[in-house]
Amino acid sequence: MIAAYQAQCQARVDAALERLLQAPRGELQRLYQAMRYSVVNGGKRVRPLLVYAACETLGGDAERADGAACAVELIHAYSLVHDDLPAMDDDDLRRGQPTTHRAFDEASAILAGDGLQSLAFEVLTDAGRNPHDAELRLAMVAELARAAGPQGMVGGQAIDLGSVGRELDQAALEIMHRHKTGALIEASVRLGALASGAAEPSTLKALEVYAQAIGLAFQVQDDILDVESDTATLGKTQGKDEANHKPTYPALLGLEQAKAYALELRDQALHALRPFDHRAEPLRDLARYIVERRH
Amino acid sequence: MIAAYQAQCQARVDAALERLLQAPRGELQRLYQAMRYSVVNGGKRVRPLLVYAACETLGGDAERADGAACAVELIHAYSLVHDDLPAMDDDDLRRGQPTTHRAFDEASAILAGDGLQSLAFEVLTDAGRNPHDAELRLAMVAELARAAGPQGMVGGQAIDLGSVGRELDQAALEIMHRHKTGALIEASVRLGALASGAAEPSTLKALEVYAQAIGLAFQVQDDILDVESDTATLGKTQGKDEANHKPTYPALLGLEQAKAYALELRDQALHALRPFDHRAEPLRDLARYIVERRH
Repeated sequence: MIAAYQAQCQARVDAALERLLQAPRGELQRLYQAMRYSVVNGGKRVRPLLVYAACETLGGDAERADGAACAVELIHAYSLVHDDLPAMDDDDLRRGQPTTHRAFDEASAILAGDGLQSLAFEVLTDAGRNPHDAELRLAMVAELARAAGPQGMVGGQAIDLGSVGRELDQAALEIMHRHKTGALIEASVRLGALASGAAEPSTLKALEVYAQAIGLAFQVQDDILDVESDTATLGKTQGKDEANHKPTYPALLGLEQAKAYALELRDQALHALRPFDHRAEPLRDLARYIVERRH
Repeated sequence: MIAAYQAQCQARVDAALERLLQAPRGELQRLYQAMRYSVVNGGKRVRPLLVYAACETLGGDAERADGAACAVELIHAYSLVHDDLPAMDDDDLRRGQPTTHRAFDEASAILAGDGLQSLAFEVLTDAGRNPHDAELRLAMVAELARAAGPQGMVGGQAIDLGSVGRELDQAALEIMHRHKTGALIEASVRLGALASGAAEPSTLKALEVYAQAIGLAFQVQDDILDVESDTATLGKTQGKDEANHKPTYPALLGLEQAKAYALELRDQALHALRPFDHRAEPLRDLARYIVERRH
């Protein structure tokens, strides 16, 4: 069951994140409070789950993946903090709680995000937290830097920003999502595979195809839920995408076609996992869950 | 002469930065424009100069230090972009030009800064741009991540933010500066030393003492210039520190004592360089220049 596996990964990464986010000295209390507030928030930890599940798919122990699991979540958390800022999406709520700039202030939110990004890279360099040889740790840093940076997630945010109020076709929309959310999801799977110490080019390729498919499926389903759900269930303001004139899959394909597309992407993801044995079951469960979830 | 050496380092790192900041695809044009605008701005490149000079002090070629020189400047540039935002220092001018959020918009400035930070780490991982073995590149990433992050520069910004309108004594002020500007200056010198391939614990220690002294001297002199200069010479709004009730050395020690302190720090820096031969001359020149400059 994905719920049990998810809870287990969540508990594991949350404990590791808590250890990382202890202020080392009094003067830094408030910054660390803002960083902790931005990270320790009951998030589902989908990206850490992908790290652990990919590592275990290739026979690696979860202990080997803790550093990478923390790193991808720190990047994700920082991106949400900055994305919620008044100059960006201007969101007051995130998972039903005040966003970081509402709970603290804008300057603290900017700095907390900046600090979380640095911390993500620092964790990967640390042999204590990311127990691998220097070459592997370096490969992990390179992977995450590319995925988080201007050719990955930040690039996707910029494309998204530039697309508001413009008509995008499906190809342009997918370029945006592949950068904005896809790059970090792919990196999570690749980092997990690297952390196993048993990644081969062919297995990495299969996992990459899987990651691309679920990344897009996640987005399509998010768009569908944004149309169908209400604010209470989602914990964020409903219909926000439409109100911002952001292009969505239901708007582009129609609601029924968008649903069919999500299922097709799930099947692509499951197909990519055929080379793997029962240890890939959490990855399979996740692909199914993504298109079945109601929030 | 420091001016000639500075011009040479500046030309060298500017060329390397230009190569890094070419948009890889059309959709990312605007983001890369904002990043390039934030970086390619006629800055003096003090941190890259420290990287090159420390590398050459230990007998390394400048080619070995290009990656580190770019990385520290990317971190510095991102910190200025975020620091200038309305929610932070709210500055309209930087080196006499509109700040990034004025030339573009706030969201673009936030994203450009975020992207520059990722890019700094990416450059260090890249064997093409940072030609060292994996272990050394990893050590460089670790050094920069610590210096840039919550226990370094970002921590310093947060301490600075929390100190506005409060009375700080000299010890508290120095903790703030050691984080806010000192950490990246120290990292620049250490990265240059690492890039030489000839760093020993004792030489690293001597260079660290040097870096701490000039970092503080730089800050003390900045505070002095903020009191003495006018807006035209500085290229930023004069007396801003005082208007913001930020603690400064002249306010704390009196102007004459602050000047004496700057000279004392210069002498500490020169003393730390005694183990080194003529190849440390640029570092010595810089220490002298910092306390003599008028802007």
